[in-house]
Amino acid sequence: MKGYRIAIVGATGAVGTKMIQMLEQSTLPIQEVRAFASKHSVGKTVFFRQKKVIIEALVPESFEEIDLALFSAGGSISKEFASEAVKHGAIVIDNTSYFRMDPNVPLVVPEVNKEDLKKHQGIIANPNCSTIQMMVALEPIRQKVGIERIIVSTYQAVSGAGAKAVFELEQQTQSYLNRLPKKEWQTDILPCGSDQKHYPLAFNALPQIDVFSEDDYTFEEWKMINETKKIMHDQTIKVVATCVRIPVVQGHSESIYVETKEKIDVSEVRELMEKASGVCLEDDPSQQIYPQALNSVNRKETFVGRIRKDPDIEKGLHLWVVSDNLLKGAAWNSVQIAETLHEMNLIHG
Amino acid sequence: MKGYRIAIVGATGAVGTKMIQMLEQSTLPIQEVRAFASKHSVGKTVFFRQKKVIIEALVPESFEEIDLALFSAGGSISKEFASEAVKHGAIVIDNTSYFRMDPNVPLVVPEVNKEDLKKHQGIIANPNCSTIQMMVALEPIRQKVGIERIIVSTYQAVSGAGAKAVFELEQQTQSYLNRLPKKEWQTDILPCGSDQKHYPLAFNALPQIDVFSEDDYTFEEWKMINETKKIMHDQTIKVVATCVRIPVVQGHSESIYVETKEKIDVSEVRELMEKASGVCLEDDPSQQIYPQALNSVNRKETFVGRIRKDPDIEKGLHLWVVSDNLLKGAAWNSVQIAETLHEMNLIHG
Repeated sequence: MKGYRIAIVGATGAVGTKMIQMLEQSTLPIQEVRAFASKHSVGKTVFFRQKKVIIEALVPESFEEIDLALFSAGGSISKEFASEAVKHGAIVIDNTSYFRMDPNVPLVVPEVNKEDLKKHQGIIANPNCSTIQMMVALEPIRQKVGIERIIVSTYQAVSGAGAKAVFELEQQTQSYLNRLPKKEWQTDILPCGSDQKHYPLAFNALPQIDVFSEDDYTFEEWKMINETKKIMHDQTIKVVATCVRIPVVQGHSESIYVETKEKIDVSEVRELMEKASGVCLEDDPSQQIYPQALNSVNRKETFVGRIRKDPDIEKGLHLWVVSDNLLKGAAWNSVQIAETLHEMNLIHG
Repeated sequence: MKGYRIAIVGATGAVGTKMIQMLEQSTLPIQEVRAFASKHSVGKTVFFRQKKVIIEALVPESFEEIDLALFSAGGSISKEFASEAVKHGAIVIDNTSYFRMDPNVPLVVPEVNKEDLKKHQGIIANPNCSTIQMMVALEPIRQKVGIERIIVSTYQAVSGAGAKAVFELEQQTQSYLNRLPKKEWQTDILPCGSDQKHYPLAFNALPQIDVFSEDDYTFEEWKMINETKKIMHDQTIKVVATCVRIPVVQGHSESIYVETKEKIDVSEVRELMEKASGVCLEDDPSQQIYPQALNSVNRKETFVGRIRKDPDIEKGLHLWVVSDNLLKGAAWNSVQIAETLHEMNLIHG
């Protein structure tokens, strides 16, 4: 085999850029990488392993000679083009939320449920960034003692809202440092580009990610609830989330409370984490060692620390879980799905 | 009566400065304000209602002509001088943690337990900033349906660590925007001046406030646990906290899960909050209305929003609670205690 022909759809975005980097580092046999993006990027150049790749416009025929298509260009593009890609014989790994809850589409975190890949029908969904790192951290606990209940509060980075949102945060921050009045700060995107009102994030915390939905939870919060149940194959796990954007560029942090089915000691949890795939244990309070967003940048692991027993609930545990939202939360998990498909011999299967 | 003679101990700090502002706005009868601070500030000038106040050095005799002494100069100063102030006939309102758990010292949030002031023996403790706003938000719920359990994750502003920490965050932030490598950022104070290691807070989240203590919880987390039980007069309430510093200058945010003893609807909680003393309800998801740290700056209220039912637990509620940590969390609560003592006729009592 000469290697796979891979398409990146949304190649110039915050995630697309990282997808190319992750493919550069990948052990996947790669014959060719092709890059697709919106009209105003067509003709521009990106690089894959020092080779120029010209950005192309996306049409259904784009997928004729493609084996794997990694989508990260928004739900509407996935809706329009994913089935076209499958029709032309490509396997789609989709980073948007569009297909995640489709019962015919596996939703995969390789450390947790790679077996689900066997049932794929052409499209595989990459979970939401904040869900993925929580799954990596909690799966070892679930396997050992079961999980009854999860309560999570997130501290999410702005790069999850795209490259323009990062620029907006940096502009606002400079405006603050220059002592410009708040009304002169650039405030056009956050908390959510598609919503009505926009608020500054610089030196602020915004308890809204994505738009509001049922029962006054945001879509981001429902994603964490519903995706957890699907990935862990357990509709009975109680999950609830409060999702908050903070002025961090890269690296999501999560304060997680978990109630297990059976009792487990903190020392046992630490042992589990040391052995767990994809986890890096950073947990030594005596040395002030705990996961930090800034330290997670450009790392593929999920960092777990501040593990402690609830003072009142025998089966209650608290954890602090951090990961690079653009890598394990998006680009790396997508490329890791591709690598896993290859290892499991499921491409051209 | 000519009004009270009031001493501010720690008058040049982040909180002391705000104490003077709060006294300027207060309806308390005030005859004189005197300001005390550390050696390097002695002789400098602050202003109270346009009148110059020269900073003095603190000695036991400083309190001879003082009725009320507001302390915010660190636990060691409170330890050394609070009893001297009482000996000289002053009432001490102490903003440090030094006396908070002393059974002879009332720990007071006026909206919750002002009756405790009647038992004071000269010293009254102001609770921890993160505890105060949680108490203001939860007391109306506790009174109506009782509270079984609280799980809180905080998003705390850097001004809680003092004026130098604010400067450090701003310097680090400018270094980031100037694209200086992280190792060149000024990192001498945060997360905790008295601890061994220091980490950058700019574009980061640090899950450590104060030093580590028993069972790998930080002191800040134990403060929220123990102070809640003392203020609410209920040792059976289950409380647990994860305290996190984020790159915000002023305004603490909290993601709070509360399990009540009896069932209550979200609409009833909103009604309670509308009527509650010291609370400002900001909760309309359809209009993207929710509390924000930036909007809380220089406001005395505690802002409550994102009120919603837990999807699985019948008596479970989630809230997002924000308040200015320097005002309700410190200076305003202290001055409010002074006003309440006056109203209850407990000064010179």
